[in-house]
Amino acid sequence: MSFITLTTDFGTKDHFVGAVKGAIYSELSDAKIVDITHEISPFNITETGYIIKNSYKSFPEGTIHIIGVDSELSADNKHIAIELDNHFFVCPDNGIISMIASEIQPTKIVEINIHDRTVSSFPVLDIFVQVACFIARGGNLTVIGKEIQEFKTLVEIQPKVNQKISQIIGGVLYIDNYGNVITNISRKMFQEIGKGRNFKITASRYFFTKVHDKYNEIIGKNPKEPRQFDGHKLAIFNSAGYLEIAIYRSNLNTVGGASTLLGLAYRDPIIIDFFTESKPEYTPLS
Amino acid sequence: MSFITLTTDFGTKDHFVGAVKGAIYSELSDAKIVDITHEISPFNITETGYIIKNSYKSFPEGTIHIIGVDSELSADNKHIAIELDNHFFVCPDNGIISMIASEIQPTKIVEINIHDRTVSSFPVLDIFVQVACFIARGGNLTVIGKEIQEFKTLVEIQPKVNQKISQIIGGVLYIDNYGNVITNISRKMFQEIGKGRNFKITASRYFFTKVHDKYNEIIGKNPKEPRQFDGHKLAIFNSAGYLEIAIYRSNLNTVGGASTLLGLAYRDPIIIDFFTESKPEYTPLS
Amino acid sequence: MSFITLTTDFGTKDHFVGAVKGAIYSELSDAKIVDITHEISPFNITETGYIIKNSYKSFPEGTIHIIGVDSELSADNKHIAIELDNHFFVCPDNGIISMIASEIQPTKIVEINIHDRTVSSFPVLDIFVQVACFIARGGNLTVIGKEIQEFKTLVEIQPKVNQKISQIIGGVLYIDNYGNVITNISRKMFQEIGKGRNFKITASRYFFTKVHDKYNEIIGKNPKEPRQFDGHKLAIFNSAGYLEIAIYRSNLNTVGGASTLLGLAYRDPIIIDFFTESKPEYTPLS
Repeated sequence: MSFITLTTDFGTKDHFVGAVKGAIYSELSDAKIVDITHEISPFNITETGYIIKNSYKSFPEGTIHIIGVDSELSADNKHIAIELDNHFFVCPDNGIISMIASEIQPTKIVEINIHDRTVSSFPVLDIFVQVACFIARGGNLTVIGKEIQEFKTLVEIQPKVNQKISQIIGGVLYIDNYGNVITNISRKMFQEIGKGRNFKITASRYFFTKVHDKYNEIIGKNPKEPRQFDGHKLAIFNSAGYLEIAIYRSNLNTVGGASTLLGLAYRDPIIIDFFTESKPEYTPLS
Repeated sequence: MSFITLTTDFGTKDHFVGAVKGAIYSELSDAKIVDITHEISPFNITETGYIIKNSYKSFPEGTIHIIGVDSELSADNKHIAIELDNHFFVCPDNGIISMIASEIQPTKIVEINIHDRTVSSFPVLDIFVQVACFIARGGNLTVIGKEIQEFKTLVEIQPKVNQKISQIIGGVLYIDNYGNVITNISRKMFQEIGKGRNFKITASRYFFTKVHDKYNEIIGKNPKEPRQFDGHKLAIFNSAGYLEIAIYRSNLNTVGGASTLLGLAYRDPIIIDFFTESKPEYTPLS
Repeated sequence: MSFITLTTDFGTKDHFVGAVKGAIYSELSDAKIVDITHEISPFNITETGYIIKNSYKSFPEGTIHIIGVDSELSADNKHIAIELDNHFFVCPDNGIISMIASEIQPTKIVEINIHDRTVSSFPVLDIFVQVACFIARGGNLTVIGKEIQEFKTLVEIQPKVNQKISQIIGGVLYIDNYGNVITNISRKMFQEIGKGRNFKITASRYFFTKVHDKYNEIIGKNPKEPRQFDGHKLAIFNSAGYLEIAIYRSNLNTVGGASTLLGLAYRDPIIIDFFTESKPEYTPLS
C-alpha cells in the first residue's frame, strides 16, 4: 500500500482532481490518495512551498507527494522527482521544493525524461501520475530521469538580517483560513538572532513586544470573560514554527482577520528590532 | 480497520487537514479517514453541532469522530472524549456535543488528561489524533482521561414554547449550501406541540401555513411547466427532520436563496402559532 | 473492493456528503469512495455533464458513479442506472448522462423502481447509495429497475453548423477554476468541419486565428522573460479536447481570468468562421 498526496491549484470544482485520482487508482488500486490541498492560489509557488513543508512530514516515510502548481513543461520549467527526508516529491523545478530542500539535503534529484512526443497541457495527469506510480511500485528514480545536483530556489522566502545583527527584515508569506498572517521568520531564526534581547515587531502600523505560544495566552489564567478578548491582536509562533500575526478568534467572513483588520497582504514587510539598551522606550512585558 | 471522521473549521486551503491526516496514517496505516466538513464558520459551535448530529449516525458503529472547532485547551475549554450511541467523539467541551447528547445519553464521558507539559496551539494534531488512534486500537477511555458526568450545553439551540402551548419561538440554526434556512424546530416538537392544529409559521415578514415533505411537492402532480416554480418559497421538514424555509431550486450565486431573498440570518426568530378556532383568519391549505 | 465516485451540487460545508459516505461505508466497509466534485453550481446539468464526461474514464472499469444534481424524484425526473463503457452511472434522468451517452451507446439503462412509499427529499442518500451498493455487490441492474431504451438529452450542449459548412456556432459550456472559458466545440468537430482551412474564432469582441496545444506555446521557444506573457489571451484545445479561451497564467481572485477579462459567461456564443479565400483579410499565423 502506497500513500500518495496531492497539492495543486486545481480547485475542487473542475474535473482535474477526479481525473488524476482515477488515473492513480487505475494503476494502483490499493493506493491511499490524500488531498493536502487543491486551493493553492493559481500559480503561487510560495504558498505551495509553505503548505507542503508543513504537512509532508506528518505522513509515513515513503509517501509520494505530487505537487501540481505551475507545472506545464517548458525549457524554463523542467519536471523533477526528489527523494528527501525519506519522502518523494514529484513536481516542477520552479522553486516549490526549495523551502524544504534549503533545510534538508535531498538524497537524490532527477530531471524527469519520460515525456514522449505527446504535447501535454495537463502534465500532472499525463506525467506526474505515471512517475508517482512508478516510484510506488519500488522503481528507481534514475530510470525515469537524469540525475541532477541543483534545483531552483525561491529568493523571496528568506528574511534578511542587517549588519549590526539588530534587525530582521522579513515579510508576509501566507494568509491562512482565519485571516492570520504568517511571516517568513522562523522561531529558530528569531532565537538565534535575538539571543534573548528585548524586541519590537512592526507589522503595518502596529507593533508587538511579546510572542505567544498559544492563542488564548492573551486572556491570562482563569478568565471570567474570555469572549471580551475576541478581536484582540497578538503575535504568536504558530504550530508550524513561524512568527504569525493573529487576531484572537477571527472570522474573515464576519468581523475580519489579521490580514483585513491590520491591512497586511502577501509580501508586506514585517520588521523585528532587537534592543540591548537597559532602558528601552517601551515597557517590556513579562 | 477503523473509521475516523474529521469535522473542523480549518478550511481546505491550509496545511492543517493534510497534517492531521498524515499523522493518523502514520499511526494507523489502514485507517479510513472521512472528511465530514472543514468549512465550519470559524469557531461556530452551533453549526458544528448541527452538522455532526446529521452525519455521524450514517457511519458504521465504532466510528471515531474528531471535532476540531474552537479546540484550544484552556481552564474554560477542556478536551473530552465521549462514547455515545456506539460512536466515539473527541472534541472540546464547549457545547458541540450537546445537540446530540441532549437526546441520547452518553455511555461514558472522560476529560482527556494526556496533555504533557507541551503547550500546543494545534491540539487536533497534537492531542485529538493521539486519542482517536488510541480508541481505534481498542483502548479504554478511562486510560486517557478522568471520567466525568457533565458536559457543557448549548442554550441557543433550544426553541421555547409559550405557557398557553399555542406558540413555538424558534430561531435560525444554519444556512445550507443552497441558501435554505434551517430552524431549530424539529418535526417531533412541531407534532408534539401542534397536535394537528392549524398553524402559521412566521419568518421575517413572510408566513407559511403548510409544511412539505419534498421540495417539488409545490409543483403538484404531472406539471407541464415545473420550471415556473423556480424561486417559489416553501416550508419543508428537511431530511434531517428540522423545519426549513427554502426557495425551490435556489442558487446563492445567481438568483439567491431563502437566506438572501427572505432576509433571514443565523439566530433570526422563527415563530409558529397554532390555532384552534373553527374560523381562522386565513384559509387552511389541504 | 469497489470504486464509487460522487459528483454533486451539495457543497462541502453541509452534512450531506458526510452522511452519504457514512451510508456507503456502513454497507460496504471496503469501498473506495472518491469525490469528483461537490461544487457543481446548484441544479446545473450542463456543468455536471462536462465534469463527469472528463473524469469518469480515468477510473478503473466497473467504477460506479453517483451523480446527485437536481435528483429529487418526480413524474418529470425519474431515477436511472446506466451501464456504459464498462462504467456504471446512478443519476436522475435529466440529461446529465447525455453528454457521455451521445457518443458512446449505453449497454443497459434501467428506470430505478426500488422507491417504496417513503417520500424522500434526499434521494442520493435514500436511493442512490442503495443502488450503488447493490451494483457493487455484483447485482444485476434489471433487479432494481425496469429496462428502458431512451434517456433525456441536453440540447444546449450541441453546437450548430451553417448550411454552407463555413461556420460553427457554439457556446460557452463551462468556466474553470482559472476563469478559462470552455466551449462546446470539440477538436474533433473543429477538424471535421474545418478540414484544414484558415479560420477566425470570435468570442465576445475578441478573435483568434490560431489554436494552441499547450498554454506556454504563446511564449515561443527559449524565452527570456516568460512572465511578460502573463495575462495574454489565447485559444487552446484543452486536455479534455474542447476549444478553450484562456488567459495565460490567470487568477480569478487577483488579475482576473478569461471569463472576467473578456466578458464571457455561460451560454455566450462562440463563432468559428472558416475561409477558403486565397487572400484572407487577416494574416494567418504559422
